[in-house]
Amino acid sequence: MKRSVFFISDRTGISAEIFGRALLSQFEHEIEFDEKTLPFIDTADKAAEARKMIEEAYQQSSDRPLVFDTIVNPDIRAIIHQSPALIMDFFQTFIGPLEKELKTASSFTVGRHHAYDRSGEYNNRIKAVNFALNSDDGASMKYFDDAEVILLGVSRCGKTPTSLYMAMQFGIFAANYPFVSDDMDKLTLPAELKKNKSKLFGLTIDPNRLHEIRTQRRANSQYASLQQCRLEVRLVEMLYKKENIPCLNTSSKSIEEIAVLILERCELERRTF
Amino acid sequence: MKRSVFFISDRTGISAEIFGRALLSQFEHEIEFDEKTLPFIDTADKAAEARKMIEEAYQQSSDRPLVFDTIVNPDIRAIIHQSPALIMDFFQTFIGPLEKELKTASSFTVGRHHAYDRSGEYNNRIKAVNFALNSDDGASMKYFDDAEVILLGVSRCGKTPTSLYMAMQFGIFAANYPFVSDDMDKLTLPAELKKNKSKLFGLTIDPNRLHEIRTQRRANSQYASLQQCRLEVRLVEMLYKKENIPCLNTSSKSIEEIAVLILERCELERRTF
Repeated sequence: MKRSVFFISDRTGISAEIFGRALLSQFEHEIEFDEKTLPFIDTADKAAEARKMIEEAYQQSSDRPLVFDTIVNPDIRAIIHQSPALIMDFFQTFIGPLEKELKTASSFTVGRHHAYDRSGEYNNRIKAVNFALNSDDGASMKYFDDAEVILLGVSRCGKTPTSLYMAMQFGIFAANYPFVSDDMDKLTLPAELKKNKSKLFGLTIDPNRLHEIRTQRRANSQYASLQQCRLEVRLVEMLYKKENIPCLNTSSKSIEEIAVLILERCELERRTF
Repeated sequence: MKRSVFFISDRTGISAEIFGRALLSQFEHEIEFDEKTLPFIDTADKAAEARKMIEEAYQQSSDRPLVFDTIVNPDIRAIIHQSPALIMDFFQTFIGPLEKELKTASSFTVGRHHAYDRSGEYNNRIKAVNFALNSDDGASMKYFDDAEVILLGVSRCGKTPTSLYMAMQFGIFAANYPFVSDDMDKLTLPAELKKNKSKLFGLTIDPNRLHEIRTQRRANSQYASLQQCRLEVRLVEMLYKKENIPCLNTSSKSIEEIAVLILERCELERRTF
């Protein structure tokens, strides 16, 4: 029997999920969870309905559900808190100590994203995503001058998801350039990259993992062969070394980790909202 | 004088930022914060260095800094907790009650992303991002059969960032199709869309906002003119109505909100990690 879990929010529920999952991950070696997200619980009626769902989950099980909530409004929160559940409340827990420390009452406005949507930060994020798309895969090298960082690497080593994530999460203008055999044969950087050398960051990957990824894409091709993957990785790593380009092996890292490690090494500032 | 804030994590710091910023947003009407993220604090030495940074921030100010941390390892956490700061500790606060409720000790492993990277969930996420890229802007309609949702809308109403976000955050296969004047003149759906009618979801936008966005891209063009924006939005909304396609106005919503509202309306399951 899985343990019922509810992530409840007056907005998207994404923060409540991140909050709850980080904690639940500490127990997954022992317990299976049945997770449900209830977003936009922003009226008393919706809260009563959510409470009913929690009650039903409790009736169907011998254990009370776990509830992770990030509801800002105290009245709506109170309705959820009457549920037969272990309530892990994000705002209630931390707002009190913060109010005391800052000697200021919290505004109890719902979220901050809304206010920020209209601001330059939001536009910047969309611009960064469009930039990553327009300059993806070396599509147009004219973008390199405007990039904050240019990711290099062989095909399928993680450049595109990383540059998109950096744009979406941090508002960073990240371009990327895929090495093609011509660059690798000559072991040189194209002129457009040389011009922007301080922005270059190399990605590399374990050849076996690359072989696996490329096989999913184009099985039994020359492109996916282990031999080809080994050759490309060896050449690209030689080039990074020769040109003194900082680099990172992506094989066992999540996109988040790769993105943050690049921010650190390139001393780029997070531009979040 | 801004109040010093540190987001500290043994991993990327993204959760610590989300955690801290959600709380700080409740005080921004009164107080300005100077935020710094310290990721990958996973050794005693790094923790001691972080503590030193907190001490320095304290010495330069009359107020003690605020520290939001998501460090799992209790020994490393203890070093941070000796700092002269208001400590808002995520794991310490909630792990105790959870252990008691679940009658299980937490695993105290660092994060879960690592373990998950190698799993199908991670691959699915990358596949979803690639799917969004390959099928972007109606690039190739052959992808529509594999899509879970197909976003419709005029140019620059938010289709691309939304489909990428749905892929990155939720692992959803979202394609998108931009209406071109030919579809709009005839007020019909192309055959490839008709075939997948149950997957269609329309985005719409306030014409003034659209005019603003398009002007940033191509000022003084016919494409960006308010008249053209009004016409396109009117036609596309008529088409949604005629074809009974569910739709959403994106004008005052964040990408997160748009994505979650679509999940809800289309009854798509979040496939997160």
